[in-house]
Amino acid sequence: MLDPVSWKLDSGRVIRAFEPDIDDYRGKLRIIDQTLLPEQLEYIETCDVKEVYACIKRLAVRGAPAIGCAAALGLAAGAFRVVTADKEKFLNTVKGFADELASSRPTAVNLFWALNRCTAKLCASAADDGSVDTLKIILLHEALDILAEDINMCRTIGEYGLSLLREGAGILTHCNAGALATGDYGTALSPMYAAHERGMKFTVYSDETRPLLQGSRLTAWELSQVGIDVVSICDNMAAQVMKEGKIDLVIVGSDRIAANGDAANKIGTYGVAVLAKYHHIPFYVAAPYSTVDITLEHGGLIPIEQRDGDEIRRGFGKLTAPEKVKVYNPAFDVTPHELISGIITERGILTPPFSHKLKEIIKS
Amino acid sequence: MLDPVSWKLDSGRVIRAFEPDIDDYRGKLRIIDQTLLPEQLEYIETCDVKEVYACIKRLAVRGAPAIGCAAALGLAAGAFRVVTADKEKFLNTVKGFADELASSRPTAVNLFWALNRCTAKLCASAADDGSVDTLKIILLHEALDILAEDINMCRTIGEYGLSLLREGAGILTHCNAGALATGDYGTALSPMYAAHERGMKFTVYSDETRPLLQGSRLTAWELSQVGIDVVSICDNMAAQVMKEGKIDLVIVGSDRIAANGDAANKIGTYGVAVLAKYHHIPFYVAAPYSTVDITLEHGGLIPIEQRDGDEIRRGFGKLTAPEKVKVYNPAFDVTPHELISGIITERGILTPPFSHKLKEIIKS
Repeated sequence: MLDPVSWKLDSGRVIRAFEPDIDDYRGKLRIIDQTLLPEQLEYIETCDVKEVYACIKRLAVRGAPAIGCAAALGLAAGAFRVVTADKEKFLNTVKGFADELASSRPTAVNLFWALNRCTAKLCASAADDGSVDTLKIILLHEALDILAEDINMCRTIGEYGLSLLREGAGILTHCNAGALATGDYGTALSPMYAAHERGMKFTVYSDETRPLLQGSRLTAWELSQVGIDVVSICDNMAAQVMKEGKIDLVIVGSDRIAANGDAANKIGTYGVAVLAKYHHIPFYVAAPYSTVDITLEHGGLIPIEQRDGDEIRRGFGKLTAPEKVKVYNPAFDVTPHELISGIITERGILTPPFSHKLKEIIKS
Repeated sequence: MLDPVSWKLDSGRVIRAFEPDIDDYRGKLRIIDQTLLPEQLEYIETCDVKEVYACIKRLAVRGAPAIGCAAALGLAAGAFRVVTADKEKFLNTVKGFADELASSRPTAVNLFWALNRCTAKLCASAADDGSVDTLKIILLHEALDILAEDINMCRTIGEYGLSLLREGAGILTHCNAGALATGDYGTALSPMYAAHERGMKFTVYSDETRPLLQGSRLTAWELSQVGIDVVSICDNMAAQVMKEGKIDLVIVGSDRIAANGDAANKIGTYGVAVLAKYHHIPFYVAAPYSTVDITLEHGGLIPIEQRDGDEIRRGFGKLTAPEKVKVYNPAFDVTPHELISGIITERGILTPPFSHKLKEIIKS
């Protein structure tokens, strides 16, 4: 389980998308309202399941690992406030909470995984002796375990990825696979936090990542909060900064990795990978091994979500394209494995060919 | 000189960034206020030099050829309203107008060229007999000649470029090198207007072109006004639409072409060219031969203007990046000649190697 003391020691070093209130040991949550970034840093303090649901639904907290952790902690916090000594009644109420939270983002796999893990633990423990109060503690510990594992995953990816960074390096990233998307240092950004902690100087070029601007609103913001040198660029400037020799390395996150190493990530990632190849710049994907979907032979089988056209037409609250013009708005693209120099996981950095190595790490 | 009858016949077929009022044969100008697009289509009607100056300065009219034409017509309109029979006094007043207009956009070469041509014509004609009223007509005719030549340039580029288009084609363009940037059909967009007039069906994918969104605000708007099938995409989606086989051809404009064929254009063009190369898609540059700067051996000698960081940080009147975050905001990039399949000019389509052919066309 998460050690409250080490958590508190660590918490000054990184922006946390959400955190449990360790002093109030009943799982109260503090969540950064990411919809207000970068203009305002505001925290929502809550122990109410409905409010946690709303935070996930309206993207106040986003990023698959972050959503999973926040939902588990929200479930525990809600459970603490159920007033009953009847275990069955308690279990049913908590399962209802879990169902409610699970409906907040229907596509986020980590969300279901974390909530199922919590309710499964609760059901298994309910058969034992022990009161409802004991179950509440068990549930909170399970949620904190999920968070601790996420923190550990981030840190380990950071340590592995650190070996790729050099003093004075220029690193390009796309979208936000950082602290605001996970329970800790993120995935793609974790090696940068690890390097920064060791006093290494380097510059991160952050693609703004249209249409939702996670790069400029979130990545540029979270890195600058801890004093990492970050330069915000429009997506269409990536080629130019590469040409000027400013980029030594690209690191991005991933939402799903197929068995052959093809990696789905935020739209625009594939283009960055092609540009990196043309400029002979190494292109790395950082993701937990749980991202690997071994059931998919190749990336062509990963479904690409099409999103609402108004994200492009009025993405800034203002009409920036003709009102009824057709748009094409895929949320993700797939980078084929042949453009990927390596996959940084918490079980090591995999280099091509990936197929066999991906099979091995998910087994281990 | 421009034939008023054919102008009027043509004028229904294309959106015109600006146009002289042919009925009121004293050069009154109608200018689309492009700063209001795509939300509102509003025309500014003026015959006042100060107002034309303001229109150019605040980008109500933009695009190098359009600025040159509008300034010349604005000068003629202003001259018509000078009340004097004294030729020298008239000449000095008009030269003052020209100086004022020239100061509106200090880097637009076409602007100085057009204004110098008008005042040179006026000075040469002042030595002849003939009254101030005659000089006013001569000046207007010179301005209309400039416009007629620009129209002719656009149409000829369109006819040459037409040979590259096929029924059902997908064409990608970046920024706006269309009707809103010239006196007529534009450069990069001219072949599309020519094909549309002949009833050809095709789809244009228009990069939105951050930071100033000329693609989504202007290109998508002007093409959809005449019923051309256009799809607005974020810049970072170009690679994906290419990968999906949606693009058969890329056509972009250019601001300056070096002696070896390297072409400067709006930031993001170079990245599109690299992506086109990777996907084996032909990449064409369309520009009048006057764009060729034979004094520059290669594109590395073209200075790249750096623009204000707030175009990226608050491009839409809203803060979309941390307020003080560093940004890198080059206005242009240079596409090396080896990525260019051909240069479409009003003197034919040049194919690689370009050096000798570029020298020839500027001589002819």
